[in-house]
Amino acid sequence: MTHDTTGDLVEDRGAFSIYGHWRSNAMYRLRVALALKGVSYREIPVDIDAGEQRSPEFLARNPMGAVPALVEDGLPPLTQSLALLEYVEERFPQRPLLPADARGRARVRSIACDVACDTHPLIVPRVRKYATTTLGLDQDAWRAWAAHWVGTGMESLEAKLKASPDTGRYCHGDSITIADICASGMAMIGRIFKLDLPATPTLTAILDRCMEDPAFAEAEASRQPGAPQG
Amino acid sequence: MTHDTTGDLVEDRGAFSIYGHWRSNAMYRLRVALALKGVSYREIPVDIDAGEQRSPEFLARNPMGAVPALVEDGLPPLTQSLALLEYVEERFPQRPLLPADARGRARVRSIACDVACDTHPLIVPRVRKYATTTLGLDQDAWRAWAAHWVGTGMESLEAKLKASPDTGRYCHGDSITIADICASGMAMIGRIFKLDLPATPTLTAILDRCMEDPAFAEAEASRQPGAPQG
Repeated sequence: MTHDTTGDLVEDRGAFSIYGHWRSNAMYRLRVALALKGVSYREIPVDIDAGEQRSPEFLARNPMGAVPALVEDGLPPLTQSLALLEYVEERFPQRPLLPADARGRARVRSIACDVACDTHPLIVPRVRKYATTTLGLDQDAWRAWAAHWVGTGMESLEAKLKASPDTGRYCHGDSITIADICASGMAMIGRIFKLDLPATPTLTAILDRCMEDPAFAEAEASRQPGAPQG
Repeated sequence: MTHDTTGDLVEDRGAFSIYGHWRSNAMYRLRVALALKGVSYREIPVDIDAGEQRSPEFLARNPMGAVPALVEDGLPPLTQSLALLEYVEERFPQRPLLPADARGRARVRSIACDVACDTHPLIVPRVRKYATTTLGLDQDAWRAWAAHWVGTGMESLEAKLKASPDTGRYCHGDSITIADICASGMAMIGRIFKLDLPATPTLTAILDRCMEDPAFAEAEASRQPGAPQG
């Protein structure tokens, strides 16, 4: 993989600004990756619940109206957490978050996509808004929807992890990768919304192991400024 | 970027087998990428409409029950189209589908994610099934849902493309990238389902340009075995 910077430049690049939100799962992924790599940054809160991401001021910064949006050196923001995880990996090679072999990278990226493409997008605020207003779903129907998709995602991932000899102490072998980062975010959603989810012993053991690492634990939504107390 | 194989090995690797479906947007992406790179493969149809992807036989091959699933050399299948696009890019370096610079790669991957994470997963068959059975949506409500999310995705992408000096003859500069592959798939959905979508002149001009390339045109759902005639 090509890297634009060397380890020496990491300190200089500590001035990332990232527009985020305490509860954002996508921001969580980025927080963990940057912590694992020891890269400092500034997180600027955007009030998603108040719709600040759709304000003219924010849309002028990022036409997509989404967090996280990573800004450096006054350049246009870079967006989308999977793209940003790859960017962080390329820019800061220390403590690799992707395996060294192409098939391993494909497997890790596929797990990241199982979460970030097939599960998480179904329960984000804009979908909840459409479901509870345009479709008229009540709270119970929305919670059933969320539990269904998070549960389906976790069960599928459990099956995938259990079936593969490539699964180790973590989702892929014995090193933390972006697969663990994305999977742990899905489990965090279950905790935040107190969803009734299926038993997934293989996945749960891996995620418990992740949470022993301060990079994961300190990135938790509940630990961010703005999160409700208790 | 590290590549496991050299150009010389490409011919040997023509024996990919990929489980797919004529209408699958994710399979379309892979078809285009492999055609652009001149890599041959065998597509094995899975009858998604009949639920064949949930059969015990297919689940034994791929516990996720999803297409595309790429098989080579009798090894476990690799899944998820974004992961597979990266894999194809790493394995077959000819005609690169990612830019040479890290920020460019991040922008291209973010556009791919705008489609593959934020848009397409909301209208796949399993979501349609839940919406039309568990939620009881009728056909009109489902079509409104699909048009809303595809339309929102296309409008956001139009704004992003229009605002950026990095946009060229294609989504990023003057070369085809995975951004164009994913964006053209979103437009294909609009055509298949005859959705009423907003005007997106910047995006449409780019996608018309893509469709002049046989790699795109021949990957179209309507051109695949199994597609309804006319």
